[in-house]
Amino acid sequence: MAAAGAFSLGLDFGTNSARALIVDLRSGRELAAGVANYRTGTAGVILNPKDPNLARQNPADYPVALIGCVRAALRQARRRRGFDPRRIIGIGVDTTASTPIPVDDAGQPLALQPVFRKHLAAQAWLWKDHTSHAEAEEITNLARRRRPEYLRLCGGAFSSEWFWSKILHCRRVAPEVFRAAASWVELCDYIPALLTGCDQAGAIKRSMCAAGHKALFHPQLGLPATDFLGLLDPALAELRGRLYCQAYTSDQPAGKLTPEWARRLNLPAGIPVAVGSIDAHLGAVGAGIRPGRLVKILGTSSCDMLIAPKTGPVPTIPGLCGVADGSIVPGYWGIEAGQPAVGDIFNWWVSQFDRRGTGHRRLTRAAARLHPGQSGLLALDWNNGNRSILVDVRLTGLLIGQTLSTTSAEVYRALIEATAFGARVIMDRLEEYGVPVKEVVTCGGVAEKNRLLMQIYADATGRPIRISRSSQSCALGAAICGAVAAGPERGGFRTVQQAQRALCGLKPTVYRPDPPSTAVYDRLYKLYRQLHDAFGRPGHTADLSRVMKELIEIRDQARQ
Amino acid sequence: MAAAGAFSLGLDFGTNSARALIVDLRSGRELAAGVANYRTGTAGVILNPKDPNLARQNPADYPVALIGCVRAALRQARRRRGFDPRRIIGIGVDTTASTPIPVDDAGQPLALQPVFRKHLAAQAWLWKDHTSHAEAEEITNLARRRRPEYLRLCGGAFSSEWFWSKILHCRRVAPEVFRAAASWVELCDYIPALLTGCDQAGAIKRSMCAAGHKALFHPQLGLPATDFLGLLDPALAELRGRLYCQAYTSDQPAGKLTPEWARRLNLPAGIPVAVGSIDAHLGAVGAGIRPGRLVKILGTSSCDMLIAPKTGPVPTIPGLCGVADGSIVPGYWGIEAGQPAVGDIFNWWVSQFDRRGTGHRRLTRAAARLHPGQSGLLALDWNNGNRSILVDVRLTGLLIGQTLSTTSAEVYRALIEATAFGARVIMDRLEEYGVPVKEVVTCGGVAEKNRLLMQIYADATGRPIRISRSSQSCALGAAICGAVAAGPERGGFRTVQQAQRALCGLKPTVYRPDPPSTAVYDRLYKLYRQLHDAFGRPGHTADLSRVMKELIEIRDQARQ
Repeated sequence: MAAAGAFSLGLDFGTNSARALIVDLRSGRELAAGVANYRTGTAGVILNPKDPNLARQNPADYPVALIGCVRAALRQARRRRGFDPRRIIGIGVDTTASTPIPVDDAGQPLALQPVFRKHLAAQAWLWKDHTSHAEAEEITNLARRRRPEYLRLCGGAFSSEWFWSKILHCRRVAPEVFRAAASWVELCDYIPALLTGCDQAGAIKRSMCAAGHKALFHPQLGLPATDFLGLLDPALAELRGRLYCQAYTSDQPAGKLTPEWARRLNLPAGIPVAVGSIDAHLGAVGAGIRPGRLVKILGTSSCDMLIAPKTGPVPTIPGLCGVADGSIVPGYWGIEAGQPAVGDIFNWWVSQFDRRGTGHRRLTRAAARLHPGQSGLLALDWNNGNRSILVDVRLTGLLIGQTLSTTSAEVYRALIEATAFGARVIMDRLEEYGVPVKEVVTCGGVAEKNRLLMQIYADATGRPIRISRSSQSCALGAAICGAVAAGPERGGFRTVQQAQRALCGLKPTVYRPDPPSTAVYDRLYKLYRQLHDAFGRPGHTADLSRVMKELIEIRDQARQ
Repeated sequence: MAAAGAFSLGLDFGTNSARALIVDLRSGRELAAGVANYRTGTAGVILNPKDPNLARQNPADYPVALIGCVRAALRQARRRRGFDPRRIIGIGVDTTASTPIPVDDAGQPLALQPVFRKHLAAQAWLWKDHTSHAEAEEITNLARRRRPEYLRLCGGAFSSEWFWSKILHCRRVAPEVFRAAASWVELCDYIPALLTGCDQAGAIKRSMCAAGHKALFHPQLGLPATDFLGLLDPALAELRGRLYCQAYTSDQPAGKLTPEWARRLNLPAGIPVAVGSIDAHLGAVGAGIRPGRLVKILGTSSCDMLIAPKTGPVPTIPGLCGVADGSIVPGYWGIEAGQPAVGDIFNWWVSQFDRRGTGHRRLTRAAARLHPGQSGLLALDWNNGNRSILVDVRLTGLLIGQTLSTTSAEVYRALIEATAFGARVIMDRLEEYGVPVKEVVTCGGVAEKNRLLMQIYADATGRPIRISRSSQSCALGAAICGAVAAGPERGGFRTVQQAQRALCGLKPTVYRPDPPSTAVYDRLYKLYRQLHDAFGRPGHTADLSRVMKELIEIRDQARQ
């Protein structure tokens, strides 16, 4: 149990802004939160009108936003009874990933040097930068031939969002930046290094989470083999030696807050700063992840997290984005899966096709009046490709069952259902490989705002669904890591689980599967799987001639 | 050649109104046209809020509209130099079909009797009434077992829109109407009977066109066999004896205009009135149909007509709605096919999903700026089922290829393309069975208004497409039949072809296939056929895993 008057600071670096959360470790109360937007580009993202795949960030924005959000949180916290900034005992950090930054010998981003200030390749390569899609394919193909075990670690395909794709692309399109970089660090490693004053690129403590999920790092074997990287590019093999051969879980301290940063943040120096982690993974921690409880971070996309006891060798689950040792909770396998578009699909529908323009609220109301199956529609949720379990960006959406009286609200509901079925495919795959999914906890804006979606998810997956109590689960997860890095002797916690028990909770509402609805969704899901396999599995042959007829039968029964 | 100052009157009974067209047989000029709406129900159609399948018409509306439209046309024609109503030498009639009406011994609609005035089953059963879908299935199934040759006459399935389905349904739901009916007459037989004073149901001259395409009538064998009908219902076998055993092509006179109707219409008595026909079939005549020229009547749906020389036995083309002897042009096989929704699909899209609400015009402009294949989308045009060549109402729409940036105009264009591919499937099937389709002539509102659609049809079918000169091809076809029924001795024509040569023409614009566009559409059409067969052909298995990828490839090439 935390000592009286102990607080932890969670820092969450998102896509458009940074957020600081101060948590009271005794009561579990979230005392104060501050937000600061990044300044460069469009909502903090540097775009290129000529290349829609490009998404970078100015590394100089991070420290500015960091100071801004911490000071804002402290101002707010000071108005709370019992708060004392000197009692902040730990700091944890989560960020987007893979967001690698080319740095110099001292671990400083190249973009801070005048010569590279405007160079696009010298900036932070934001997670959603897809300029490296050709390199991703190249890495995947090479691994398929030479090192199939690497693909088992990352669900069958290396993504264009990940560490090696981006660095290899930089090597090809901006060799001057590649040459100048002493090393590359993930944003989640850079922030702790900054706060703890690490001034050697080689000494930066790397996140096991980012290393394992984005850089093919293996606890025993390290980064991918030199000869493998050399086949991609000899310079990559050479770079490997300058990167890292160890990575740390986020319950470990990366170091202590330097006097200089303590001054900037108005905090005491010497506070332990935990090793960083990926936002979604610490979101899962903040949502109280535990074996059997899938945490689903639902926003524009969905990030699905699960942990499994380390009772055997590393579980290889085909089509899940990754399995890494301790990447979510130390001592457990961290398993990550995802859907590349969820809220984005609903936003697309509303912005392009909702005639009356009154948006989500009207459509949700109208969709809520429909019974499962009543529209006769079925959709595939692949408008932005499929991450799990097909791992294929070259897939697209599909809508089937429309008649001349199909309405916008019916399509809207079918799209929600499609994302629910996509979620169920992931759960089915986990269970198929011995990882039980007994309940689902969601966090993120979509989960909190949309009761219809939550009920559809419960009905369509046949599992109870709840919402994380914290509306800032990622920052809470970071604060938990800060408290564990500080340790019980300073008023923190011994383990992540111990901290979770004290600090995490669920909102009271439970969305339980409604058996008659689940029965209809079971029939629709069978059809969804038929379409899923027919369009998504190479070489799969199927007889689809009953699909439209069964949708009509289900519809006619639902309308009776 | 027509004598100086000879005119023909074409009467066209559509779904919502009747139209009279006066044609100058010497110049081919359409001198005047009059329209009169039906009075009963919603735009002339009696609907039932409890049953969306029901669509009936009040038979009392027909003579009222007939008088209204003829008088309006005459008023207009009298203002033209050289017109003299006494020189109207023939009258032809086309109507919707199958629109059967239960009548008494004298051939009078039962609905004109006070006891049946409000009885829904005693009204005219409008072509688009689908209350008889179960009976249609029953007839199809029985024919499959006992008389497969019947199905060859009607493309593989008997429709709920047709004669026997409707009468059998009446027998079941309204036996009192069925018992009271001495006979059933098609609307296209009723109007000529009315005008010529035929006062015996048994003596009404029946249209070969309606009999052949809607009642399974065969020139040699007559109506379906008594034992076949008896298996459906003994009362149907008994009714058969009271119907007809002969049918006539529409170049034949049904009789002469009675003095009573001459007075009502302000016309001289004794004008020959041709045997009636189905509107689409006479539309094909008015559009100058001839071997090798497919006439496509494009509106909310599409009706496709072709004639083939009678060089062999009746051609059986699987999946085309019907082949009948002389049903379009006497002396040729008349072949009919169709798409149950064309304009209806575009209307559906605009009314439900066009956010900005500015409708067809804006979407057409935006869609016209796209290159073939550029959207990455592909659709199936089955929102209202498929008539040709699958003959299956239990099919629905499908849209594939959507991403998060798919726009409404892209979908709109994909829907136009889908209907073009649906049209091409029909053309391919005709050619596969030895009936060449060298050119396409369209008529109907959609063809005249939408240049984008016409060009897409030319590109997607690889055939030149033109538009019938007359914007009232059906009424013109009826006037042609009137002129042939009158015969050359009265200033008319000897044959339908002779009249067509004198009276029909095309608008000057030719939509020619653009080879690069056709090349893209050939690739898309292959994918369309894959989806068509996968979802439409029972028992067909396919590997569809390349469809989305090929759409992406085509898209990426189109965008370069």
